[in-house]
Amino acid sequence: MEKIDIYPFYVEPFHVDLSGRIFMGILGNHLLNAAGNHSQRRGWGIGALNENRHTWVLSRLCIEMEEMPLRYEHAEVKTWVEGVMKLFTSRNFAILRPDGTPYGYARSIWSMIDMETRKPCDLLSLYDGDIVNYVVEPEENICPIAGHGRFRFRNAELVRTIDTYYSDIDINGHVNSIKYIEHILDLFPIERFTRQGLRRFEIAYKAESYLGEPLSFYLQPVDENEFDVEVRKNDSETVCQAKICFK
Amino acid sequence: MEKIDIYPFYVEPFHVDLSGRIFMGILGNHLLNAAGNHSQRRGWGIGALNENRHTWVLSRLCIEMEEMPLRYEHAEVKTWVEGVMKLFTSRNFAILRPDGTPYGYARSIWSMIDMETRKPCDLLSLYDGDIVNYVVEPEENICPIAGHGRFRFRNAELVRTIDTYYSDIDINGHVNSIKYIEHILDLFPIERFTRQGLRRFEIAYKAESYLGEPLSFYLQPVDENEFDVEVRKNDSETVCQAKICFK
Repeated sequence: MEKIDIYPFYVEPFHVDLSGRIFMGILGNHLLNAAGNHSQRRGWGIGALNENRHTWVLSRLCIEMEEMPLRYEHAEVKTWVEGVMKLFTSRNFAILRPDGTPYGYARSIWSMIDMETRKPCDLLSLYDGDIVNYVVEPEENICPIAGHGRFRFRNAELVRTIDTYYSDIDINGHVNSIKYIEHILDLFPIERFTRQGLRRFEIAYKAESYLGEPLSFYLQPVDENEFDVEVRKNDSETVCQAKICFK
Repeated sequence: MEKIDIYPFYVEPFHVDLSGRIFMGILGNHLLNAAGNHSQRRGWGIGALNENRHTWVLSRLCIEMEEMPLRYEHAEVKTWVEGVMKLFTSRNFAILRPDGTPYGYARSIWSMIDMETRKPCDLLSLYDGDIVNYVVEPEENICPIAGHGRFRFRNAELVRTIDTYYSDIDINGHVNSIKYIEHILDLFPIERFTRQGLRRFEIAYKAESYLGEPLSFYLQPVDENEFDVEVRKNDSETVCQAKICFK
């Protein structure tokens, strides 16, 4: 089987923001679907894994876009495994126009956990390390964007606290990964998106949160167009951290 | 051209709730996409209309489901025009399994407005009344669910007020039709969805709301499993009304 998959998507009218560009959360969803399908097709997808009591956990995601696809545009997600370590695997993405030119790229890091113990599994031994067979050659790994950065929160300011509800919760009972992206971007004035647009979005998932746990959002400006956000539950434990770069 | 279209969809992992069933808002989005595509293909879609300064406005939507599609299931939306009056058209839907058996049905009512005057257009004369050519024969109009009901709010109680943000707003600058469905269902405890499930959801859109206008949600129980909700902006003007029936 090939190592790289391509999944087409279409920018639906309710999936675009006021500027007519796809919401970053919706784009993230397309990436996670592509990841899930690519993985599933090769036998280590979540569906198959559930039966064996293992599941993928998204640890980090960063998306950097030259341009966001517009309403009614057709696009595609190309995805592949960049590398595998004992406890983590890195998967990259290209978001392409039908003519093959890039809208942008994305990087992600995943671990696999035992659903009972919640502990990470050894990817190099699971399924006899089958995943290693799908790591692409270096020359195929075309993903010319910076890797995942580090976060340092020093003077972050509490800017919003929200309750979470039914529509935030996924099948596992956690606030879903995409909803964090929505809630984080909702901290910014809409003019940021209409006048500037997003250039890069980075998120590191640190802990799960559950229905009924209030989420607090701490904002730390880095410069005029770059912001770090830390999401905490119960006002103390870090749930996720994000970096938002406007153009 | 045929009068009835069929659009397939797939239940994505992030599109299901804690019970593993598709969110009603996501299903609603599939219906609206099917409506848009059906309409567009026949020359009176929103894309074409925008150029002529007309646009469709969704007035009512009701969805009644025997069963909600589950994660990873494939399904399809069948849609057609039931009837046309001067200022409104009714469009129905069937939500089907690949074997043709129904998950459920839906009804909707639309008007077309002039985007400049915001006034409704005469559907029987616009495009020489072309839409009338697509009204199905009565025997093809298989939609065995009750029509849109009436709302009477007498003792509704204010249960939540929310601010709206970037991700609530569509390309026209309005809170998007699907987001209302999400916010309304978020009023209910999650156990309603996991233990009972939704049977029927009805919504009547009355007025647009905009970023920065707080939305207040008034809840009125009808019986143990049926609830009416009125959404008001600025605590006075009615934005939409909904009926939620659990199994």
